[in-house]
Amino acid sequence: MLTNEMTELLKIKYPIIQAPMAGGVTTSKLVAEVSNAGGLGMIGAGYMTPNQIREQIREIKQLTSKPFGINLFVPNDFNWTESEVKLANQLLEPIREQLHILQGDTLEIPTSNHVYEIFNEQIKVVIEEQVAVCSFTFGIPSKEVITELKRNAIFLIGTATTVEEAVEVEKSGMDMVVVQGSEAGGHRGNFISQSQESLVGLMSLIPQVVDHVSIPVIAAGGIMDGRGLMASLCLGAKGVQMGTAFLTCIESGAHKVYKEAIMHAKEDQIVLTRAFSGKWARGIKNKFITEMEKHEDLLPDFPVQNTLTQPIRKASSSQNNADYISLWSGQSPRLAKNQTVKNLLDTIITEAKKINNNI
Amino acid sequence: MLTNEMTELLKIKYPIIQAPMAGGVTTSKLVAEVSNAGGLGMIGAGYMTPNQIREQIREIKQLTSKPFGINLFVPNDFNWTESEVKLANQLLEPIREQLHILQGDTLEIPTSNHVYEIFNEQIKVVIEEQVAVCSFTFGIPSKEVITELKRNAIFLIGTATTVEEAVEVEKSGMDMVVVQGSEAGGHRGNFISQSQESLVGLMSLIPQVVDHVSIPVIAAGGIMDGRGLMASLCLGAKGVQMGTAFLTCIESGAHKVYKEAIMHAKEDQIVLTRAFSGKWARGIKNKFITEMEKHEDLLPDFPVQNTLTQPIRKASSSQNNADYISLWSGQSPRLAKNQTVKNLLDTIITEAKKINNNI
Repeated sequence: MLTNEMTELLKIKYPIIQAPMAGGVTTSKLVAEVSNAGGLGMIGAGYMTPNQIREQIREIKQLTSKPFGINLFVPNDFNWTESEVKLANQLLEPIREQLHILQGDTLEIPTSNHVYEIFNEQIKVVIEEQVAVCSFTFGIPSKEVITELKRNAIFLIGTATTVEEAVEVEKSGMDMVVVQGSEAGGHRGNFISQSQESLVGLMSLIPQVVDHVSIPVIAAGGIMDGRGLMASLCLGAKGVQMGTAFLTCIESGAHKVYKEAIMHAKEDQIVLTRAFSGKWARGIKNKFITEMEKHEDLLPDFPVQNTLTQPIRKASSSQNNADYISLWSGQSPRLAKNQTVKNLLDTIITEAKKINNNI
Repeated sequence: MLTNEMTELLKIKYPIIQAPMAGGVTTSKLVAEVSNAGGLGMIGAGYMTPNQIREQIREIKQLTSKPFGINLFVPNDFNWTESEVKLANQLLEPIREQLHILQGDTLEIPTSNHVYEIFNEQIKVVIEEQVAVCSFTFGIPSKEVITELKRNAIFLIGTATTVEEAVEVEKSGMDMVVVQGSEAGGHRGNFISQSQESLVGLMSLIPQVVDHVSIPVIAAGGIMDGRGLMASLCLGAKGVQMGTAFLTCIESGAHKVYKEAIMHAKEDQIVLTRAFSGKWARGIKNKFITEMEKHEDLLPDFPVQNTLTQPIRKASSSQNNADYISLWSGQSPRLAKNQTVKNLLDTIITEAKKINNNI
């Protein structure tokens, strides 16, 4: 039941991938512990420099001999105007003052070119350091990148939010596809379908995707325990990818106030916002989301808005203030626990086996 | 596996309820066939007059000796202003002209009082005709109504979209709760949580509700086959309620162009709109939704907007034109088939048993 082509292909014991959460959550300890406990640990490297990536890969290899993976953001062209940025800065300035940080006009906004360059360097490091698995969000990399990774025997996983996107992931030559349900925390991974239309719940998304692709399908979004794992398998997925469940684990690098916020949240306090980064993402509604709500459509796109809010999130975090941190979370916060990775995985497997026997 | 307290309480063979879709979908033939085939057929009586309800109950009793149920809309106070209605009529007038129907100012807008009166009469008929099961959407009826129905041994089912709403349903004395996931087609049943925040996917919603109530939980939203049934059971539900899967069945009263539209739709064409009724609901994006999209927030509340669009939906339907019909659908249209109810139920059970053996 719990071993299938997915576990065989990834050479792991349990069909469970730790979602590659960006922004410091996926410490080396977290990634290594997941892999050691029988799942697949993943580095959320979207915002990391090539050097940071290299260091972390080497650190994890000291902590585990098991396979682990890395996730990169596929770059997309983006544009911004002076007036958009000016407006966003006007909205953010009172918050910056309150947190005693520098004004927004000192921030350097990235160029499309620079983002593409960094991506190519990230890929180079992944190949040089021979990471077993590389997954992608926000799109599909170029044919050249995919060919190069495959030539180096790196296992490739794409992310899709609709049937059409999953079909494109398969066509691109990737080995597996993570389907991100509307339940999922963090950034939406849609890259063909529009943001609102791509919010499909896993109960609908998994079987419809499974009917249209032949590569293994991994379910992501709101899955926290053995119930979610077994349900995903019934729907035709070969495994699950879990974010929030690992985020509140002891080994995760998420800030204490962030973990606490999730463990006290209710499912109807988890909303979609583009106020933090310019890209739609799901998290706990806090003061920042509430304050920016009515201006949301006017804010610049990812990654521009992300750059503008970065010092705010950082300062809020170092002041132990959850008001201005991006508190990404899936829709199942009531199921979150502060426990070790090993305990989480053991409990899931025990529960899954029990369900399998009783149903 | 497929028999549990839910099937025992409802005295049915399979843990499958046919969703009480309003607006002519739930013909007597459909309801009776579902009950005859081992599920629970349901009359979607929200918009029906007490007399129509009485007639249909009697008709169904001629077609089946098995239990069936009925669903009513719990009335809520509503207000509207002349200017709101005037604006809505201005937006609708070009469509009325195109469909060659009367102008909007000839329509009689219901009063809150009238809606409450009809509800009380509907309840009276349900009791007099001894319907086995009565379910409710859009809220919880008064203590008096619940007491009266229970005194008459009518089995009561509430509808909830969040944990908090499910807890209130249980507290009110109802016997069972349908949890409506964000995947569900038709009107949102939220009555405490806000519309947008109450869009929780079933993968998240079922286990969180199950952990907080002791009455049986029924999963609704995007479930179309044995995979969805088994997944729901794994998540802790005791059964499922399916709408779209029955809507495209041969016995359903949905218009041919409506059934066709669902069978050609993709999951990312199913959107949320309040343009048809003033209440948020999920359906296929057609010309009407697209045209009204940017004015959506200005339209009057349910049931005022519903009254204003009623002749448009009716005319569009009788002209075999899907552009202005409310094409309610869940998020799994790719799984819809035009088949008999018996075939649908048999296939679900066969598939569920197969999954149970293989997993």
